[in-house]
Amino acid sequence: MNNEFEEKTVSTEEIYKGKIIDLRIDTVRLPDGNQSKRELVSHPGAVAILAVTEDDKLVMVEQYRKPLEKTLIEIPAGKLEKGENPETTAIRELEEETGYSTDSMELINSFYTSPGFADEIVYLYKAGSLKKLENSLEGDEDEFVSLKEITIEEALEMEHSGYIHDAKTSYALLYAKHFLFKD
Amino acid sequence: MNNEFEEKTVSTEEIYKGKIIDLRIDTVRLPDGNQSKRELVSHPGAVAILAVTEDDKLVMVEQYRKPLEKTLIEIPAGKLEKGENPETTAIRELEEETGYSTDSMELINSFYTSPGFADEIVYLYKAGSLKKLENSLEGDEDEFVSLKEITIEEALEMEHSGYIHDAKTSYALLYAKHFLFKD
Repeated sequence: MNNEFEEKTVSTEEIYKGKIIDLRIDTVRLPDGNQSKRELVSHPGAVAILAVTEDDKLVMVEQYRKPLEKTLIEIPAGKLEKGENPETTAIRELEEETGYSTDSMELINSFYTSPGFADEIVYLYKAGSLKKLENSLEGDEDEFVSLKEITIEEALEMEHSGYIHDAKTSYALLYAKHFLFKD
Repeated sequence: MNNEFEEKTVSTEEIYKGKIIDLRIDTVRLPDGNQSKRELVSHPGAVAILAVTEDDKLVMVEQYRKPLEKTLIEIPAGKLEKGENPETTAIRELEEETGYSTDSMELINSFYTSPGFADEIVYLYKAGSLKKLENSLEGDEDEFVSLKEITIEEALEMEHSGYIHDAKTSYALLYAKHFLFKD
């Protein structure tokens, strides 16, 4: 890969170290020799799961998203614990958020969500052979989610209406429409 | 839409006001009456452009991404100026980053990139009828990008190799493959 545009760090200023994200400002040397500042958010990374039930329903979660001050419907997702394998996170988050277990968790793709200012990466999995757990696991104590099971047509209608409105879910719906529910 | 999970702001602490992003910590009242903290990044929003040349090449830009400490190949994109209409931004960014003008700019979709911690929204456009400008416009002085024109097959191969690795571009490629270059 081309490295001619590399921006070497001249100095770093730590602004904030938080529960989920950190913020720092790097002063960088640009390819032309000038300097600039980069505002950089560190995030542990996340998984998201396209989970399909036996009767071809998509398993979704409804959740209030404080940054947007609104409720969205998204595919189940969760942050990586430190050092955790993404597949392990995906199995855990699926169980915690939806009460489903699976023995079929397959990586579809991974992508950086906001490469201009953050290092967050999302690993997108597909889960099949879902089994409802008798006793659902406890999720994070400050997360309140409501489970929805909907058809791909209902999901695309919700995207049209703006209730589904995030990159990982839009990607998953496009994938599902063309690879899982192909006519 | 369901508002039962709404998190009312109890207090706000401004942490950082930057060139591109701001960071604040909101203390919120959860649906169960308890309080929690939310780390919230504000971003002006962005556009991204799926631009296809007359000979069916995708117009891409190679750019160093400091948060990732690596070079990625992405569809052209750029931040919204304050109060700017996204379509205007898309036309401007396409001209600045690629030297192409268009009279066909169509919104494909929009999505929040990281709804857990940021309010960034990306408006994804499709641009056709590309015309090369004789005198290319000046872009941001601290942005260094290199233009690439590649086939959809080359793009999918680059995604497989990890040179293409961001959500808006992966979404655009999946869209292009199934709606623009359908067999």
